[in-house]
Amino acid sequence: MTSTSPTRLTGPAALTADAERAYDLDRQHVFHSWSAQETLDPMVVTRAEGSYLWDGQGNRLLDFSSQLVYTNLGHQHPRIVAAIQEQAASLCTIAPSYANGTRSEAARLIASHTPGDLDRVFFTNGGADANEHAIRMARLHTGKHKVLSTYRSYHGGTQLAINVTGDPRRWPSDNGSTGTVHFFGPFLYRSPFAATTEEEECQRALAHLEQVVALEGASTIAAIILESIPGTAGIMMPPPGYLQGVRELCDRNGILLIADEVMAGFGRAGRWFAVEHGGVVPDLLTFAKGVNSGYVPLGGVAISEKVYRTFAQRAYPGGLTYSGHPLACAAAVATIETMEDEGIVERVDALGREVIEPELRALASRHPWIGEVRGTGAFWALELVRDRESREPLAPYGGSSPEMAAIVSGCMRRGLIPFANFNRIHVVPPLTITAEEAKEGLAILDEALAEAHGPA
Amino acid sequence: MTSTSPTRLTGPAALTADAERAYDLDRQHVFHSWSAQETLDPMVVTRAEGSYLWDGQGNRLLDFSSQLVYTNLGHQHPRIVAAIQEQAASLCTIAPSYANGTRSEAARLIASHTPGDLDRVFFTNGGADANEHAIRMARLHTGKHKVLSTYRSYHGGTQLAINVTGDPRRWPSDNGSTGTVHFFGPFLYRSPFAATTEEEECQRALAHLEQVVALEGASTIAAIILESIPGTAGIMMPPPGYLQGVRELCDRNGILLIADEVMAGFGRAGRWFAVEHGGVVPDLLTFAKGVNSGYVPLGGVAISEKVYRTFAQRAYPGGLTYSGHPLACAAAVATIETMEDEGIVERVDALGREVIEPELRALASRHPWIGEVRGTGAFWALELVRDRESREPLAPYGGSSPEMAAIVSGCMRRGLIPFANFNRIHVVPPLTITAEEAKEGLAILDEALAEAHGPA
Ligand SMILES: Cc1ncc(COP(=O)(O)O)c(C=O)c1O
Ligand SMILES: Cc1ncc(COP(=O)(O)O)c(C=O)c1O
Repeated sequence: MTSTSPTRLTGPAALTADAERAYDLDRQHVFHSWSAQETLDPMVVTRAEGSYLWDGQGNRLLDFSSQLVYTNLGHQHPRIVAAIQEQAASLCTIAPSYANGTRSEAARLIASHTPGDLDRVFFTNGGADANEHAIRMARLHTGKHKVLSTYRSYHGGTQLAINVTGDPRRWPSDNGSTGTVHFFGPFLYRSPFAATTEEEECQRALAHLEQVVALEGASTIAAIILESIPGTAGIMMPPPGYLQGVRELCDRNGILLIADEVMAGFGRAGRWFAVEHGGVVPDLLTFAKGVNSGYVPLGGVAISEKVYRTFAQRAYPGGLTYSGHPLACAAAVATIETMEDEGIVERVDALGREVIEPELRALASRHPWIGEVRGTGAFWALELVRDRESREPLAPYGGSSPEMAAIVSGCMRRGLIPFANFNRIHVVPPLTITAEEAKEGLAILDEALAEAHGPA
Repeated sequence: MTSTSPTRLTGPAALTADAERAYDLDRQHVFHSWSAQETLDPMVVTRAEGSYLWDGQGNRLLDFSSQLVYTNLGHQHPRIVAAIQEQAASLCTIAPSYANGTRSEAARLIASHTPGDLDRVFFTNGGADANEHAIRMARLHTGKHKVLSTYRSYHGGTQLAINVTGDPRRWPSDNGSTGTVHFFGPFLYRSPFAATTEEEECQRALAHLEQVVALEGASTIAAIILESIPGTAGIMMPPPGYLQGVRELCDRNGILLIADEVMAGFGRAGRWFAVEHGGVVPDLLTFAKGVNSGYVPLGGVAISEKVYRTFAQRAYPGGLTYSGHPLACAAAVATIETMEDEGIVERVDALGREVIEPELRALASRHPWIGEVRGTGAFWALELVRDRESREPLAPYGGSSPEMAAIVSGCMRRGLIPFANFNRIHVVPPLTITAEEAKEGLAILDEALAEAHGPA
């Protein structure tokens, strides 16, 4: 993958014996995702706490990636750890067909925060299978087949999920699935519609989608799936009115709207769910990651009453062995209760507005490579360009560049783990990060950008 | 689903307050797999230990299903519980790109038991995504596209996995995937080839596959995927020579062999992996369930050197957020070490031969509905028929019947949870079940069969 793949820091300290063994066995037996196996030199992680982790040489690093944007409550949050340990002591697992208190409670808590009538929860193991099942539900509910999704999106690594994905990770698997169609979402900085204002971008993006629906045939389209705020693809906040426009277009055409909130949901965007920014209620909403900070694999689909009714008397033909796994659900209960009790969502919203955004705008004023700053909450992107006029990306779409590599390694050497993708650096720390930690990380980013760029 | 879906026992005792709440919230918020939601009346499980679980009324039930054939070391095994608690205390999660001691150790232990050179492990969350990724690897390794799989098989619930599945769960999703072709595996009792001996069945099944390969075109076929012993579809032991024959056919035609050991692997079949019964080494082997007794969601693909080399310098285009999740890997380490230390595999092999098989054959001599007894280890099926001459199934393919429902409810009322599918009862208890517990369960099955059948 051309995103962050943290490699070993070179330095005087040797790996501890345990870390050495972890590294050697990894190289002998662990097959890594999105990678050419023999080009890797992975960093060993031996310990993590809050916003920090420690490598095999004892270096402490500040985690500005939340791993893959999922450790929303940071590492080793004591309440989640305790909940896992207690659930492990009482009942690690039970099959999906039973009823179980922890699973019921997790579903209740999730439903209490999802918008509108998304009150039924089908649990999966992660984000990809959540999207796969949401699409199946939409197909069976509508009796139609095609699924529309945006370019510049990521929906997961299984065959159907990767086929609706709109980033380069799809290309090698772009076969074996029919009825997936890609359209352009709004992205003013690189407008596919030659728009010059957010309003124009919104209106043209909706007109474009209207045309795609007309030309693909509304009678063939089951669903439009989109990330409420596209995440790995670049954290492009939809312009005001866009999500409402898509919602209306869906309603007019008998198409279901699936919001992928795997990355943007559960507080990341300064709201419980990012669709709240657009004020719409999707028919299906998929989640994973932040639902339990990834302490135990968990994902799911929140289902509207309308779709639920389709499967009230008729069997839903899908499932998985670990649907509603009690240990994963226990971590979700602890995560959501902590978020409620500590007002995490409101805190993140404020942190974004009061700390991260102003600091990033200050960075932009100093660093000519920063073409755009965009985001919300703890969900920010720096769009890096060689030149602010031409907007030529600092790395090509789908690739990397020496400049991007220099920024990443500059951060790492200074003790910061950034999230990099193509020509972008994302600032996606745990939602529990303090203002001081955030500033510490942004100061490192500042130095790394200056060093990589060199004197103007 | 027409398999076991344990429902509430009706009886004098009321649900405890906790169980009542679990039930009510389940009915309000939990969407269940493979089911029409409003036809369900799920049993609440509040506690489980070893081979038993307890429902919300305090009834104790013997688990002859191992849930969905995955709690191989029974419920709440103290070593696995302790390992989860310790890992939770030190490091719940870390992204796939890092190296981590627990993940490395799990990969090493798995590789130490997989046959041949299947020494690299790509971790997933469960069985479906393991098969999805194995197929992707095969497609990219061979540069070919089609995947052949057997009728009467189950490979998982995501789109590609369900499309290679050969049981009725595929039908509603039988679209959206190209290049999946089904053929007939050997099954003497209902021979698709009019064979009368295992030898004939083997030879004809191989000739059939040879024809399918020729007519689909060897140059279009990436892989043949099969369950080493088909599980949910009926535990049909492949006749001696069949797997070798498939292996040779693959080699002659540049086709990869993928063994799905999600259910049959990790001791279930009295071997570490069920392919050992056939003495072959597949190119890719998928696992889940028994790898860690399902205490934390985990699956994976064990990869041969040949396939690994394809992705040594070229990126493997696939991944998932929770690949190699440390908590899941900690449970795998504890499971595998327990299996080694307690000689579980040898024990299960003996239990099958010395206890389960003789008892089942004795049942067959008393119950005219039992058309065939087949299996190995802790992996047995009773094929139930209305009539031993005609072999008419006691429930239609893909469906249920009053007789099957009566057997299941007869077991449940007597405190046994059976595993039922169509016209079959599977005997698939935890591998840790004692001979006494096994006999206790089989005695209940005996009574339930007698009651459901009534006087001859
Ligand atoms: C928006 C979005 N959807 C789906 C996924 C896939 O989730 P998983 O990796 O758990 O399958 C991701 C993962 O990054 C994601 O960001
Ligand atoms: C042989 C086989 N393969 C794959 C799967 C799918 O596994 P999962 O439910 O974990 O996705 C199963 C599940 O029962 C199985 O029995």
